[in-house]
Amino acid sequence: MSVAVRPVVRTLTQAQLHAYADASGDHNPIHVDEEFARTTPFGGTIAHGMLVLALIGEMMYATFGEAWSASGRLKVRFKAPTRPGDTVTASAQLVKSGDGAAEYAVQCANQRGEVLIDGRAAVAGAA
Amino acid sequence: MSVAVRPVVRTLTQAQLHAYADASGDHNPIHVDEEFARTTPFGGTIAHGMLVLALIGEMMYATFGEAWSASGRLKVRFKAPTRPGDTVTASAQLVKSGDGAAEYAVQCANQRGEVLIDGRAAVAGAA
Repeated sequence: MSVAVRPVVRTLTQAQLHAYADASGDHNPIHVDEEFARTTPFGGTIAHGMLVLALIGEMMYATFGEAWSASGRLKVRFKAPTRPGDTVTASAQLVKSGDGAAEYAVQCANQRGEVLIDGRAAVAGAA
Repeated sequence: MSVAVRPVVRTLTQAQLHAYADASGDHNPIHVDEEFARTTPFGGTIAHGMLVLALIGEMMYATFGEAWSASGRLKVRFKAPTRPGDTVTASAQLVKSGDGAAEYAVQCANQRGEVLIDGRAAVAGAA
């Protein structure tokens, strides 16, 4: 179970935030209304937190498949906003394994090395 | 801070899974290839876990806004798959509050009352 998890790297765009808003049904203006977003403390649009977190989900699914879907646990903290144009790297480091389960320290960081999300992901019963 | 959180209810469709795949960049066939998905133990396509989890994020953001983006913590377990056509309700119950912070028991359940995701969400420093 102590499998190396391959990072996922992706650059987010405003077009993607619009597409994500449509797909998720979350049209909050902080994500999609650039004029409004400039008037907020963020100074511009930010990605949906779950869109960024989705990179961790994709990374874990790519390695563990259905075991992740069926038994995955995730504990994360949102630490900083992600802006259109940012390149996000989701990565995982094994923390412990045994009894057919494994726990990883996971994070998303941007191209400046700023941590956007960090936490733990655990999976049990991988084939 | 002990604010009531309004549930989010949404019916997921296969078209939405395709849109979410495009938006998130996660085109895993278990989500988008119905023919392939029928050959798996799931017996058909399932929603991206993060799409379902996004309903919890949307619900928390709707109540706490930037405080959620800046300080939100989330600890969840994926318990069952969500299929196209399922109506998912994300809901939250206050567990504890104090010192300007609050913690909620959160879950997503389908129209049959099956729990898809459960866990805790915490937020600090709400305005």
